[in-house]
Amino acid sequence: MRVGVVGLGYWGPNLVRNLHQLPEADVVAVCDTRPAALDAIIGRYAGVRGTDSLDALVSDDSVEAVVIATPVSTHHRLALAALLAGKHVFVEKPLAASSLEATELIEAARRGGLVLMPGHTFLYSPSVNLIRDLIRSGDLGEIYFLSTSRVNLGLHQTDVSVVWDLAPHDFSILHYWLEEMPTTVAAVSRGCIIPEIPDVAFINLAFPSGAVAHVELSWLAPGKLRRTAVVGSEKMVVYDDTSNEPVRIFDSGVMPRNPETFGEYQLSYRTGDVVSPRVEATEPLALEMLDFCTAVRLGSQPAASAELGRDVVRMVEAVDRSLAAAGAPVPVAVSGAVADVL
Amino acid sequence: MRVGVVGLGYWGPNLVRNLHQLPEADVVAVCDTRPAALDAIIGRYAGVRGTDSLDALVSDDSVEAVVIATPVSTHHRLALAALLAGKHVFVEKPLAASSLEATELIEAARRGGLVLMPGHTFLYSPSVNLIRDLIRSGDLGEIYFLSTSRVNLGLHQTDVSVVWDLAPHDFSILHYWLEEMPTTVAAVSRGCIIPEIPDVAFINLAFPSGAVAHVELSWLAPGKLRRTAVVGSEKMVVYDDTSNEPVRIFDSGVMPRNPETFGEYQLSYRTGDVVSPRVEATEPLALEMLDFCTAVRLGSQPAASAELGRDVVRMVEAVDRSLAAAGAPVPVAVSGAVADVL
Amino acid sequence: MRVGVVGLGYWGPNLVRNLHQLPEADVVAVCDTRPAALDAIIGRYAGVRGTDSLDALVSDDSVEAVVIATPVSTHHRLALAALLAGKHVFVEKPLAASSLEATELIEAARRGGLVLMPGHTFLYSPSVNLIRDLIRSGDLGEIYFLSTSRVNLGLHQTDVSVVWDLAPHDFSILHYWLEEMPTTVAAVSRGCIIPEIPDVAFINLAFPSGAVAHVELSWLAPGKLRRTAVVGSEKMVVYDDTSNEPVRIFDSGVMPRNPETFGEYQLSYRTGDVVSPRVEATEPLALEMLDFCTAVRLGSQPAASAELGRDVVRMVEAVDRSLAAAGAPVPVAVSGAVADVL
Amino acid sequence: MRVGVVGLGYWGPNLVRNLHQLPEADVVAVCDTRPAALDAIIGRYAGVRGTDSLDALVSDDSVEAVVIATPVSTHHRLALAALLAGKHVFVEKPLAASSLEATELIEAARRGGLVLMPGHTFLYSPSVNLIRDLIRSGDLGEIYFLSTSRVNLGLHQTDVSVVWDLAPHDFSILHYWLEEMPTTVAAVSRGCIIPEIPDVAFINLAFPSGAVAHVELSWLAPGKLRRTAVVGSEKMVVYDDTSNEPVRIFDSGVMPRNPETFGEYQLSYRTGDVVSPRVEATEPLALEMLDFCTAVRLGSQPAASAELGRDVVRMVEAVDRSLAAAGAPVPVAVSGAVADVL
Repeated sequence: MRVGVVGLGYWGPNLVRNLHQLPEADVVAVCDTRPAALDAIIGRYAGVRGTDSLDALVSDDSVEAVVIATPVSTHHRLALAALLAGKHVFVEKPLAASSLEATELIEAARRGGLVLMPGHTFLYSPSVNLIRDLIRSGDLGEIYFLSTSRVNLGLHQTDVSVVWDLAPHDFSILHYWLEEMPTTVAAVSRGCIIPEIPDVAFINLAFPSGAVAHVELSWLAPGKLRRTAVVGSEKMVVYDDTSNEPVRIFDSGVMPRNPETFGEYQLSYRTGDVVSPRVEATEPLALEMLDFCTAVRLGSQPAASAELGRDVVRMVEAVDRSLAAAGAPVPVAVSGAVADVL
Repeated sequence: MRVGVVGLGYWGPNLVRNLHQLPEADVVAVCDTRPAALDAIIGRYAGVRGTDSLDALVSDDSVEAVVIATPVSTHHRLALAALLAGKHVFVEKPLAASSLEATELIEAARRGGLVLMPGHTFLYSPSVNLIRDLIRSGDLGEIYFLSTSRVNLGLHQTDVSVVWDLAPHDFSILHYWLEEMPTTVAAVSRGCIIPEIPDVAFINLAFPSGAVAHVELSWLAPGKLRRTAVVGSEKMVVYDDTSNEPVRIFDSGVMPRNPETFGEYQLSYRTGDVVSPRVEATEPLALEMLDFCTAVRLGSQPAASAELGRDVVRMVEAVDRSLAAAGAPVPVAVSGAVADVL
Repeated sequence: MRVGVVGLGYWGPNLVRNLHQLPEADVVAVCDTRPAALDAIIGRYAGVRGTDSLDALVSDDSVEAVVIATPVSTHHRLALAALLAGKHVFVEKPLAASSLEATELIEAARRGGLVLMPGHTFLYSPSVNLIRDLIRSGDLGEIYFLSTSRVNLGLHQTDVSVVWDLAPHDFSILHYWLEEMPTTVAAVSRGCIIPEIPDVAFINLAFPSGAVAHVELSWLAPGKLRRTAVVGSEKMVVYDDTSNEPVRIFDSGVMPRNPETFGEYQLSYRTGDVVSPRVEATEPLALEMLDFCTAVRLGSQPAASAELGRDVVRMVEAVDRSLAAAGAPVPVAVSGAVADVL
Repeated sequence: MRVGVVGLGYWGPNLVRNLHQLPEADVVAVCDTRPAALDAIIGRYAGVRGTDSLDALVSDDSVEAVVIATPVSTHHRLALAALLAGKHVFVEKPLAASSLEATELIEAARRGGLVLMPGHTFLYSPSVNLIRDLIRSGDLGEIYFLSTSRVNLGLHQTDVSVVWDLAPHDFSILHYWLEEMPTTVAAVSRGCIIPEIPDVAFINLAFPSGAVAHVELSWLAPGKLRRTAVVGSEKMVVYDDTSNEPVRIFDSGVMPRNPETFGEYQLSYRTGDVVSPRVEATEPLALEMLDFCTAVRLGSQPAASAELGRDVVRMVEAVDRSLAAAGAPVPVAVSGAVADVL
């Protein structure tokens, strides 16, 4: 797969490096408006052409696929241009700045028979997949609730809120694990440093299955926290990707002591072993790029599908609507319903 | 101060022990309907009379003050009987099962010139007071937000929700630190084990000062968490009363790099020392009982005032209203306004 | 079993409490020279007689067994008096102030057909027994080495060194786990606060099986550490009795990649699951007292046998000899050899 | 400073990268016998010549200084060749395979007026220097003892023991902090995986000042530990370079309650604040390379002096002698005395 990479800021060079290491892919061109960014890549990887013109890139017949790592506001315009030129497209998360934009991209990809894949890297994390398997296999039982904190000191974005910056991570994971969209979202936020740009948000979600979830996001915190607790009826899991033991499974729970007399609430507490399963050390980004290649080559559906990417955008939009409504719970448009309308 | 203690379940004996150790107090009588509970106390402390009749206790002239540690639903009846009999009253948290009940107790105490004190023990925690001093002195700067988790596996109550059980702790602390009532409260909960009794709740609060807060409560969790982060414009604090270092002060923050050009959002991140100040090891319960004695003797206002206790009940009621309204943000009646009406 | 308890300082009252809760035992008398210590016990437990005379206690026909919790220097005298009076004896660790004293006690017990049991409480810890089972079953493979730290700020003893105070814990555990005596011991120590009383010691031990061990002991430390690593050829274990997960089993190790070419040292590193097995929460002291009762009633050998107690004293003596020899490794007299001589 | 780098295994490329980033230095040539290793560097850094001949490198007039990152057994031969050719030399730790070799290198450097610097990177760690300042300023008081653990699962060396591999780190730090050589060293070790190559060692050290130290080293451990406790009469410090808070200062200690009656050992325990000072995030390797450049340019003494490097080798040799003597304490030759002899 011959790839052109657009956007060589913080994340783009990581994508170039991972594509370069992949036997299945070949980075043939990079595109950025800053000459120094182009030079850094061209000087490091032999045979890569540089250009400051997206048009040049997308009209280059040797380019089969375009990887986009630019600010969110440009995703729609760049991805659409690439799709219309017949290129497969990978776009960094979030897929687009609105679900309407996302739908237009999905339609364009469908019409062109092209792959459109959003960069939800966490779906390629071995830890996230291990927990997904635990949920799917029923080992955790019914999922009662999830609680997650993704906070750190920095790095403040000046073009998007902490919700657009960080929530796509947690929302894509929740979507991937629960395989359902939330029915309602309610959120509180504050722009502590720059009043008009929320840098802390507390988001409550309710799902059709009965599961509830809380997502705490912040660029202002005493320390880094990446902690997700998943509480099921059979077992509980704590996921912390900053830990040496990123997945911990607690064989703990509460059960009616005597099922027949459940109404009397004689409860029994069970506290069993705690297991930290070995987690593969594979870099998620490498697996993600490989999934993109495979989708292009074989026409398979990537784990991070465009539809999932749009669902994530819908969840973020719902947070914004709740914030605009002073924290009122708002419904989240479901994937199917919206697709029907189009 | 000669005290009668009503209710010898889990908490009552702790109160008896602390009162017994206090030179200022004398436990003269205990009241419970279970003979074994009475015998255990009488056998251990010489000179304590036991009775199964509240009437006997409150009509006993040798009793000056009554300490109540019974289920919430009985607080109003028992406390009112004691106040009408001219006794000073200490009631375990929450003060009453509704703010209306709380107001009736406050009025009865005011009419009788008696002390009415709710048992918000955390207001006597040296850690909580150390953080209060940091806030009051301005060391933390403007309080941007607070995030707190109070979760554990168990112990499910069967008469009240996790909100009525645990939120009074966090709400009393927030009230004590911020010295303001929230304007609105929005919450999500679920009864995972017993459907009609919420055992997990995610509560968002917004305060007049601009501060926002999140409170996570649960009886279902992989492990015990007691963690409160307070993020101010100058410093941040983490309070964890299960830690050897219960208070940690982070000299960290974000500032505009160049105040004149604030509009351009050139931000500067500051990460300085982290200090765990020494915290006195005094038992909060002993300080609480002493404050009750002092209030009775000197007519002083206890840190845990009846008005604060009623405000806490109002916050819990607001959570229940939000839950009944499917998570909608609801206003919290402010202390003054309601008092005016009465 | 009717018991008399001698010594009501810090530890004695704990023994009284545990014996009192045991259906198999009955505390009939306590002995101490301090009237206040006697009164505290007599006032709390009905039917217990107090005396300041050991003679009175050991000549009391209603006393079957004597439990001794006095300073080490008095163990030999008190235990011998009790044994000679025909009483079964439990002595707090260490069994005696020298192995010669210990041997005299063992002989006296043997002649009288009496139980003599040293108070090595850790041998009744569910965690210690869980690890013993892992070792005995071969799950850990060959034991390569152990490393243990038992440090804290305080409490300085003024009559014995940190070695006599703390090493009996670790030495009894090592003896119980490895079921062998060390061949040599070498140690370094320092009396930091009181020059003549070592308050920090670093002890190296070598065992006949090839296992080596390090024991770090100190009353001077920034914080409390209770950490023992056991490294076996198949698995590794960390034991920390201050943790919520006191036993952690690491399925990790190093193996020759190709056994035939072992000589070329192609090594393969294995890092598997980490498991924190559930550990029973039973109080070791209760199990210890029960084992003493059972030994008295049935004539069974307690897990903490007098011979093990003497072996522990021999290990401590060897440390003292190494310290006196400027840290030279010294042999540890083996149990059998010494017994043969007697 | 124009530099040639010899040895492009694991560490050499890191040195090339750091030298490349340093304005003061210019990597002009690299030397390795493996063509692939040479190609990797030449392909990455423009203007770097590759050679497989040390003779070619040291006879290259454009090379002023040689940086050596090869196995220990080759240090002496390579460094001596470079020094005799008039080049300044930086050698990775340990300086040489014996103190005799180290002395020959020191003599050769002295005769040639050249810089000879061993690669003790930890001496350039901001944390290590912060603690050194605390010791030098007297803030910690008298240094009572140090206890350090440097253990991990892997990476087994097949040419040197864990002592030669890891002890130079801790020994250089101890030398740098205490500014004295130990008088005696006593050690126990075991070759668990490869019998003739010790992979675990417990080392006790005694210093002229009265300080004692323990150093635990292992390639076999359940997890990574990098923990050093420094216990002083005024304060205590824990250094853990794997932590977000690598230096923690405990204002704790024990003091005679009443100095006049010190003989009676009335002790008072002090537990004050714990402070984690902010530590600069500078990469030690960059500071180390800069110090080498400065020494070459200005003739200054680097913090990691050749004499310190030889002292470290003497300490490691003493460990080997103690191991050969079954753990007996052995004296460590002091720097001055040996220098006098030469």
